[in-house]
Amino acid sequence: MARSTYIKDLKEGDVVSEVFVLESKSLGRTRADKPYLTLVLRDKTGRLEAKVWEEAEAINEQLGAAQFVQVNGSIETYNKRLQLKVAHVAVKRPEDVALDELVATSERDPDEMFEELLEIARTVENPHLLKLLGAFFKDEAFVEQFKQSPASKRIHQPYVGGLLEHTLSVVNIVRFLVEHYAGLGGGLNRDLLLAGAILHDIGKVAELESGVAHGYTTPGVLIGHIVLGYQMVEERIAQIDGFPQALRDELGHMMLSHQGRLEWKSPVVPMFTEAMLLHYADDLDAKAHHVANAISSAADPEAAFTDWDRILERYFYTQVEKPE
Amino acid sequence: MARSTYIKDLKEGDVVSEVFVLESKSLGRTRADKPYLTLVLRDKTGRLEAKVWEEAEAINEQLGAAQFVQVNGSIETYNKRLQLKVAHVAVKRPEDVALDELVATSERDPDEMFEELLEIARTVENPHLLKLLGAFFKDEAFVEQFKQSPASKRIHQPYVGGLLEHTLSVVNIVRFLVEHYAGLGGGLNRDLLLAGAILHDIGKVAELESGVAHGYTTPGVLIGHIVLGYQMVEERIAQIDGFPQALRDELGHMMLSHQGRLEWKSPVVPMFTEAMLLHYADDLDAKAHHVANAISSAADPEAAFTDWDRILERYFYTQVEKPE
Amino acid sequence: MARSTYIKDLKEGDVVSEVFVLESKSLGRTRADKPYLTLVLRDKTGRLEAKVWEEAEAINEQLGAAQFVQVNGSIETYNKRLQLKVAHVAVKRPEDVALDELVATSERDPDEMFEELLEIARTVENPHLLKLLGAFFKDEAFVEQFKQSPASKRIHQPYVGGLLEHTLSVVNIVRFLVEHYAGLGGGLNRDLLLAGAILHDIGKVAELESGVAHGYTTPGVLIGHIVLGYQMVEERIAQIDGFPQALRDELGHMMLSHQGRLEWKSPVVPMFTEAMLLHYADDLDAKAHHVANAISSAADPEAAFTDWDRILERYFYTQVEKPE
Amino acid sequence: MARSTYIKDLKEGDVVSEVFVLESKSLGRTRADKPYLTLVLRDKTGRLEAKVWEEAEAINEQLGAAQFVQVNGSIETYNKRLQLKVAHVAVKRPEDVALDELVATSERDPDEMFEELLEIARTVENPHLLKLLGAFFKDEAFVEQFKQSPASKRIHQPYVGGLLEHTLSVVNIVRFLVEHYAGLGGGLNRDLLLAGAILHDIGKVAELESGVAHGYTTPGVLIGHIVLGYQMVEERIAQIDGFPQALRDELGHMMLSHQGRLEWKSPVVPMFTEAMLLHYADDLDAKAHHVANAISSAADPEAAFTDWDRILERYFYTQVEKPE
Amino acid sequence: MARSTYIKDLKEGDVVSEVFVLESKSLGRTRADKPYLTLVLRDKTGRLEAKVWEEAEAINEQLGAAQFVQVNGSIETYNKRLQLKVAHVAVKRPEDVALDELVATSERDPDEMFEELLEIARTVENPHLLKLLGAFFKDEAFVEQFKQSPASKRIHQPYVGGLLEHTLSVVNIVRFLVEHYAGLGGGLNRDLLLAGAILHDIGKVAELESGVAHGYTTPGVLIGHIVLGYQMVEERIAQIDGFPQALRDELGHMMLSHQGRLEWKSPVVPMFTEAMLLHYADDLDAKAHHVANAISSAADPEAAFTDWDRILERYFYTQVEKPE
Amino acid sequence: MARSTYIKDLKEGDVVSEVFVLESKSLGRTRADKPYLTLVLRDKTGRLEAKVWEEAEAINEQLGAAQFVQVNGSIETYNKRLQLKVAHVAVKRPEDVALDELVATSERDPDEMFEELLEIARTVENPHLLKLLGAFFKDEAFVEQFKQSPASKRIHQPYVGGLLEHTLSVVNIVRFLVEHYAGLGGGLNRDLLLAGAILHDIGKVAELESGVAHGYTTPGVLIGHIVLGYQMVEERIAQIDGFPQALRDELGHMMLSHQGRLEWKSPVVPMFTEAMLLHYADDLDAKAHHVANAISSAADPEAAFTDWDRILERYFYTQVEKPE
Repeated sequence: MARSTYIKDLKEGDVVSEVFVLESKSLGRTRADKPYLTLVLRDKTGRLEAKVWEEAEAINEQLGAAQFVQVNGSIETYNKRLQLKVAHVAVKRPEDVALDELVATSERDPDEMFEELLEIARTVENPHLLKLLGAFFKDEAFVEQFKQSPASKRIHQPYVGGLLEHTLSVVNIVRFLVEHYAGLGGGLNRDLLLAGAILHDIGKVAELESGVAHGYTTPGVLIGHIVLGYQMVEERIAQIDGFPQALRDELGHMMLSHQGRLEWKSPVVPMFTEAMLLHYADDLDAKAHHVANAISSAADPEAAFTDWDRILERYFYTQVEKPE
Repeated sequence: MARSTYIKDLKEGDVVSEVFVLESKSLGRTRADKPYLTLVLRDKTGRLEAKVWEEAEAINEQLGAAQFVQVNGSIETYNKRLQLKVAHVAVKRPEDVALDELVATSERDPDEMFEELLEIARTVENPHLLKLLGAFFKDEAFVEQFKQSPASKRIHQPYVGGLLEHTLSVVNIVRFLVEHYAGLGGGLNRDLLLAGAILHDIGKVAELESGVAHGYTTPGVLIGHIVLGYQMVEERIAQIDGFPQALRDELGHMMLSHQGRLEWKSPVVPMFTEAMLLHYADDLDAKAHHVANAISSAADPEAAFTDWDRILERYFYTQVEKPE
Repeated sequence: MARSTYIKDLKEGDVVSEVFVLESKSLGRTRADKPYLTLVLRDKTGRLEAKVWEEAEAINEQLGAAQFVQVNGSIETYNKRLQLKVAHVAVKRPEDVALDELVATSERDPDEMFEELLEIARTVENPHLLKLLGAFFKDEAFVEQFKQSPASKRIHQPYVGGLLEHTLSVVNIVRFLVEHYAGLGGGLNRDLLLAGAILHDIGKVAELESGVAHGYTTPGVLIGHIVLGYQMVEERIAQIDGFPQALRDELGHMMLSHQGRLEWKSPVVPMFTEAMLLHYADDLDAKAHHVANAISSAADPEAAFTDWDRILERYFYTQVEKPE
Repeated sequence: MARSTYIKDLKEGDVVSEVFVLESKSLGRTRADKPYLTLVLRDKTGRLEAKVWEEAEAINEQLGAAQFVQVNGSIETYNKRLQLKVAHVAVKRPEDVALDELVATSERDPDEMFEELLEIARTVENPHLLKLLGAFFKDEAFVEQFKQSPASKRIHQPYVGGLLEHTLSVVNIVRFLVEHYAGLGGGLNRDLLLAGAILHDIGKVAELESGVAHGYTTPGVLIGHIVLGYQMVEERIAQIDGFPQALRDELGHMMLSHQGRLEWKSPVVPMFTEAMLLHYADDLDAKAHHVANAISSAADPEAAFTDWDRILERYFYTQVEKPE
Repeated sequence: MARSTYIKDLKEGDVVSEVFVLESKSLGRTRADKPYLTLVLRDKTGRLEAKVWEEAEAINEQLGAAQFVQVNGSIETYNKRLQLKVAHVAVKRPEDVALDELVATSERDPDEMFEELLEIARTVENPHLLKLLGAFFKDEAFVEQFKQSPASKRIHQPYVGGLLEHTLSVVNIVRFLVEHYAGLGGGLNRDLLLAGAILHDIGKVAELESGVAHGYTTPGVLIGHIVLGYQMVEERIAQIDGFPQALRDELGHMMLSHQGRLEWKSPVVPMFTEAMLLHYADDLDAKAHHVANAISSAADPEAAFTDWDRILERYFYTQVEKPE
Repeated sequence: MARSTYIKDLKEGDVVSEVFVLESKSLGRTRADKPYLTLVLRDKTGRLEAKVWEEAEAINEQLGAAQFVQVNGSIETYNKRLQLKVAHVAVKRPEDVALDELVATSERDPDEMFEELLEIARTVENPHLLKLLGAFFKDEAFVEQFKQSPASKRIHQPYVGGLLEHTLSVVNIVRFLVEHYAGLGGGLNRDLLLAGAILHDIGKVAELESGVAHGYTTPGVLIGHIVLGYQMVEERIAQIDGFPQALRDELGHMMLSHQGRLEWKSPVVPMFTEAMLLHYADDLDAKAHHVANAISSAADPEAAFTDWDRILERYFYTQVEKPE
C-alpha cells in the first residue's frame, strides 16, 4: 500500500500514522522529574524527532532494539523545528515493512543503471582491462553491494544507488572528454580512462555501510575508500595472467590519485592527462550535486541566498531561472 | 616560400639562413675585452639565443630597433644549450616577412573556429543574452582581437588563436554538461551558461598583447582580465534596453567567479550551479592542455617522468599508451 | 519626545513601553501545545528577543508585515539572556516613529562630516580627478546614499553614517601620510592618494542595504563592493573628456586593490606606494574600530580579557588605562 | 687494494688515479668550437664533475654505456667548485671493481643489524603478527633488498643499509616508549607497535632503486612507498589463516598513517596511540639525521650557521659542544 | 573520611550528599517568572551543573563568594546531560574541606617525582648548568609552584602535579635519546639537552593559575609561558659568574624553540639537534597523553570511534587491545 | 677629499681608482689552469665584483685579512653584469679611510634624529615610563649602537642610522594616531603607545651587526630581535622601584607582539588597541620603504613594471607621477 505521508511534507498540526526506521532512542526527564522518551525516526525523505511523554520507561523497554516502528501522533513546532508528539508506538518486524518507502534511493532504477554501465564497460577494447572489469561484474556479491551503496555519507547522493548513479555520471563525462580531446597531445587512452572511471569509487562499498544503517565501517575510517578500492583492483589483477605491469601501475595511480589533492586524502596527485581528467570529472560531478542540492533544499525558498554552506564556505544564490 | 628550418628542429652543426623575430639584443664584452652581441631570436616554434662575435658594436647600431632580421650562421652547443653563432645578420622590413612562419598560431583556422562559435551563439534563446552576444560579435575590432589573442602568456595555448580555441572548447564542454545534467535540480539554465562560457575570458584581449609582441598590457596587470572582461560585458549591457537586472547580476557573477577561488584572483567564488560548472569547464580545459603539453614537450622523451613542473608541483608520467 | 529606555540599558525586572523596529517574527508552540510568538525588536542601541504568550496567532496576523511596533511588557532572564515578556503590542506607522531613536547612527552629524570631506576634496589639484570627485558629489542621489550607508554589516561602524565616518578617517590618515612621506622615493602623488581614499569604499552604497533594513543586496553578494565601486568610478570617468588612460588605470587599481590581499577579495594586490598606503590606512582604521569596540562592549567588564573574537582569533585585554 | 683517495678529501692541485662510478656524461663545445666531454663521477663519499678537453668525441664513443671508469687527472677549481681535468680515462668491467669503495653504505654491518632486528622480532608474542614477520624474514629475496635499500633518496640515510639502520632505530625508540608509557591509558600494545615499527618503511624496497643506481622506480612515484608497503603486508596477511580482521585493520592503519599528515602523503592520519607514537618515532629519527647531517656537512665549518636548508626552511647552528 | 561519590561515577537517580568546589553561580528566571539558581560544581573527577529551584534568591545571597559547598540532592537528566537537583546547600570553610578529593592531582606523588627529577639533575656535569639548575631547585617558592602546576589548562595533564609529571617524562625521553644517538654526528650534548628538558616548561608556573582555581594569568596571556620561562632562566644566569655566552644563547634558544613551530608560538624554530630533539620529546609526550586521554574518556565506550577531536581534527579508534 | 666615483654610477669602460671595503675574496683557476682572484668590493652605494688576473696568489696573501683596499682598474661587462678588472690593489689602514664614503648611512644626521626622538620622549607624562626611557637614553653605549644600527639587513633602511630613522617615523605615525583616534573607545593611552613605539625595535642593536660589517649576530639568529628587545626593556624595568606590574605586562606585550603575526615571529598577537596600532605603524613604515625602494631602484626605469619582488610576491608599477 502506498504511503500517505512523507517526513519532508509534514507541517504543524498534521496527524501521522506511519511506519518509520527507528534510528535511535534516548530516555530523559522533564523538570517536573517525569521520564520521557526521544525517538529519531526516518523515512526515505528525511529525519524527524519524536517525543513520548507518557509511560516513557515502559515503552522504552518494549521497543528494545527494534529497527522499525509504527507510530501514531501529531506534529508540533518546538524551537522552530517540527516534532512528532507520539500518541502510540509499536514495533514492526522487518518482513512487514515496505523498505523502499523508508530508505532513500536513487531516482533511477539501479538495475537499469547497472545495465547501462555494463554496456559501456563492454566497449573497452584492451583485453586485460576487459578481463578486470569482468572479474568485478561477474562477482554477484560485489555487484549487489555496488548497486546498494550511497555515493557519500552526507554530501552528495547519500542514498541507495547513489554510488552507481555517480559512477555512471563520471563515466559518461569521461566518454565525452575522450571525444572532445581526441586531438590533444596524441589523444587520450580511452580504455584506461574508462576503466579508471568505472572503478574509481568502488572502495566505497567497503567504506560505507549500506542498506538501512548509515555510517562508516571500521576499515572505512582506518584505511579509507581510496586505498580499499585500489586494493580491490590489485587483488583482481593478481588473478589475471599477463596483466602488464605498466598498465597495472597506471590504473593503480588513477585509483589512488582520483581525489586530486593530498589534503583530500589521495596519497599521490594525478600525474598524467587521463588521471587528471578522471579527477576533474569526479570532482565536478560531486560539486554539481552539492550545489544543486544546497539550492533546492534551501531553508527559505523565497530568499535570494541559502544559509552559509560550511563545506564550500559560501552562500548559494537561489534565483537562477530554470528551464520550464 | 616555405621555410626550410624551424627552431625546434635545430641540432648542433646545422647551418642556418632564415628570417626571425628579433625579440631583444644586448651588447657584452669578452674577458679579452672584445665587444660581442647577444640576440634573442624567435620563430613560431620557439626561441634561440644567437651570438655575434665580430663587429658587434657596428652591427648593434645597424640593427637599431628592428623587429625582424635575416640571419646566417651555424648551431653550436654552449652550456648544454644550442646557440647560433652568427656569420651575417640584416634587417628585414615587416612587409617582406612571412608572419605566419614567425608567430605561433592555433592548429585550427581562427575564422573557422569563429564561425563555429557564432553558430553556437545563435542557439541562445534568451533575447537579452542574444542581443549582448550580437553586440560583441558585430563589433569588428573586437572580433579581430578575439581571433588573434592567445589564451595565456605561457601556460596553456600561448599562441595566436589560442583564446578562441580555449573558448570554443569550454563552450562545447558546457553544452555537453547542459544535456548531462538536464535532470539535476530542475535542470540548468542553458542560455546563461552558454553566454557565460562564450564571454568568460574576453578580458584577455585587453590583458595580453597580441600579434608579434608578447606580454601583459598595463591594464592587464593593474586591473586583470577578470574585471576587464566583466566591464566589457557591463558596458554592452548598458546599451541594451530592458536587460533584466537579475540576469545582469548573474552573468556578471559568472564573469567574476570563473577562476573559482579568491587566491586565483576571482573577487567572488561561484555561488550557483551554472557558475560552478563554468569554473570547472574552464579549469579542466586549462589543466588538460597544461598536462598534455608538459608531457609532449618533455626534455627527455625516453624517461618515464618529466622534469619537475613548478606550476602544478609534480612530475608527469610520459608512458601512457596513445591511440594509434 | 525623548525616549526613556534603550535596549542596551535594560535589566531584569524593568517595565518597558516603547516603539521598536520589528526585525522579524515567528510563531511557535509550547510543550503544552499552545501557540506563542517570538519577535526580534531593535532600537538604535541593540537587539532584543520578545515573547507573546497569549493570543499569539491573532497578534501574529494583526502585525502582518509591520516595520514598527509599540510594545508594553517586562524584562525577564531566560537562558542567561534578557527577554521581553510582551503584555501588549500594536503596529506603528512609519510617519509616527522617531527614526533617529531606532536606527543606530554615527556620533557625528553626517552633514557636517560630508562638508568636511567636500572641503578636503576641493584641495585636489589634478583637474581630471577634481572633475571626477565633482561628478560624485554633485549627484544628490549618490550623496544621500553615501551619507546613510554603514561602513560594514557587523564588524566596524555598522550604523548610519558609518561609511562616511570611515571614509573621512581614511582620508585624514592619508593626508597625514602624504606629509609624513614627502621625502620617500620622490614623494607621494597627493591627488591620486586623496581621490583613492575618498572613493575607495563607495561600492558599499550598492553592497549594503541602508536605512532601517540591514543586510547585503543581491549585487552586493554576487559582485561585491570592490568591483561595484570600481565600476561606479569607471562610469563617471567615461563621461569626462580627456581623462588620461594612465590615471584611469592607476585609480582603478587603487579601487580594486584596497583590500590588500586576494583572500580578502581584492582581485589584484597593491602595486605602487600610494595603493599600498591606501590599503594600510583602510585596514588600520577598520581594525582600530574592531578592537576598540570589542573591548568597550566586553561581556564582563571586570575581566582582564574579553571572550574569544572569532574574526581576529584572539582574546582582547581590557585593562589599559584610558586618558581621563 | 685499499683506495688511496676519496672524493670528499680532494683539494686543488691533487693528482688522481682511481676507479669511479660513471653517473652520466654529456658532450659540449667550447667557444672556440672544439668538442669537450663532461663526466659526473661518484665514489662512496660524494660526486665530482670531470672534464675531458682532448679527443672528447672519440672518448665519448669509447665509454659507451659504461658504469665504471678508471680516471687519471688533476684537480682544479672552476667557479669556486673543484673539478677533475681528465688526462686519461678507461672503461672498467663490474667484476674488476671494488664496489664497497664506490657505493656509500651504512657504518654498521647490514648482516649484524639484520640479526639484531630479527632478535627483536622474535620477542613479539602475538602468534598472528609473529607469523607475519616470519613471512617477511624467511623470504630471502625480500631480505636481500631490505638490507640493500637506502632510507631515502637524498635527505636521511641515503646509502646501502640505510633503510635497515633507520628501521632498527625506530624499533628501538618504540621499544623504549612501550616501557616509558606502560602506565598510560592501560598501557600500549607492544606487539602491534613493534610489528608496525619493523614493517613501516618496507615499501621503500619497491620505491627506491638500490645498488649502484639511484632514484625512484615507476611504482615508487605513481603509487608511493606508503601504499606499496601496506600492500606487501596485506598480501602476506592473506596467506595466514585466521589472522584477525581487527588486527589487520589496525596494522594496515599504522602502515598508511606513519607519515602522520595528509600533506606528507599519508592517506589517513594516526587514530590511536600506537599509530601516533610510530609516527613520532619515525619522524624524530628522520629529522635527527637530517639536522645532524646538515651540521656535520656544513660548507663553512668555521661559520656559526650553515647555509639555508630548503627542506626545513632554516639555518642550522654548528657550535654546540660535542662530547669528547 | 573517604568520599563516597565522585562526579564521574554519577548516574540518573543517584542521591548525592557531598562537598564540592563552587566554580560559578548565576541566577535565572523560569517562564513562570520564578527565580532559580544554577551552580557549577567540581570535584577532582569532573564538573556538574546543579539547579536550585526553591528560594533561589535567598540561597544565592547566602552562598556569597564561597569557594566550597556541601550539597544534598538527586541526579536527573536534562537535554541528555546529567544535572543535580539541589535539595539543600551550605557553605563550607576551606579548613573543613578535604582538598585532595576536590582538586585533580597527578597519580604519582609530587614529592617523589621531584626527588627523581633532582636525582637526574645532579648527573649534569657542566658546572654552569649545574649551578643554574641549583638556583631553581634551591628556590623553595619556585619548587612549591613547580610541584603544584598543571601541564596545561585543558589538553594534557591538566591537574596538580601535571607539569612535574610532564617534565619528568620529557627528561626521561631525552635521557634515552642521548644514549640512542650517541653515534650521531659526534654525539649529543647531554648536559645541554638535559638542562633544556628540565627547564623547558617552567614558564607555566607563571602562565597558569594553580591550586583550586583554573585559568591563565594576565602575563600568561600577554607574554606566554615560552618567553616567561626564557626570562626566568635568563634572570638566574645573570646571577652566575662566568656563565659562558654561547651556552646561554644555546639554552635560551632551546627554551624559545621548544614548541617547534612559529604558529605554535615559538618565536624561533629549533636550529640544532638538541633543540630539535627537545621539541620532539615535548610534543610526543603531549600528544601521547592527548590521544590516550581522548580514548579512555570516550563518550560511548562501545563505539569503535570517539567523537570528533577538534584539536587534532580526527576521530580516535578505541579498540586496540591493551596488555592484561 | 670628496670621492670622485661611486659604484652605483659606474658604466662599462670607466677607469677606477678608489678605496673600497673588501667584503670577501676567493682564489680560483682559469681553464688554462692559471690562478685568479675574485674580490667583492663595497662603497656606500653598492657592491662590485672585481677580478685580479695577474699574480693572483701573491696578491691574495698580501691582502690577508684587510678590511679596506685601494684599487685601480677598469670596468668591463661579463654575463650582463659590470665587473672591475684590477690593475693594482693595495691595503688601506682603517685610519686612512673616509668611512662615511664607504658605509651607507641615512640621509638625515643621526644626532639630529636622536635629538628629535629625545624631544618626543620627554613629552611622556607617566613617571615610570619616563624613567624607563631615561634609563635607555642615558646609557651612552646603547645610544651609540642605536644610532649606528640599520633597520634591517636587506629589506628596508639597511644602512647606518636606519633603525633610528625607522623608529622616528613609527613614533611620528603613532603621535598622529593618538590625536586621530582621541574619540575612539575612550581614547588611546598616549604614554604607553609612545613608549612602545620608541622601544619596539631596540632588540635590533643586538640582532644586527653594525658599522662596516653586515649580517646577524649569533643571538640575533638564535633568540631574535623581538625577544632580545623585550628582555632589554625588562632588565631596565627591574631597576626601577615601583614600576607597576600591569604597565610592565602591557609594554612587554607591545614589544613581543609588534610583528603582528605568529608566522612573522611574534610569540603573541596584539591584544589591545595600542598594541594593534603599533603593529600597523611599524608594518606600514617598513612596507612603504620596501615599495618605494623597489620602484626607485627598478632595473629598467623605462619599463612600466619592476621585476618580480620575491618578498611581497608581485611586480611594482613605476609610472605614478611624482610631485615636482
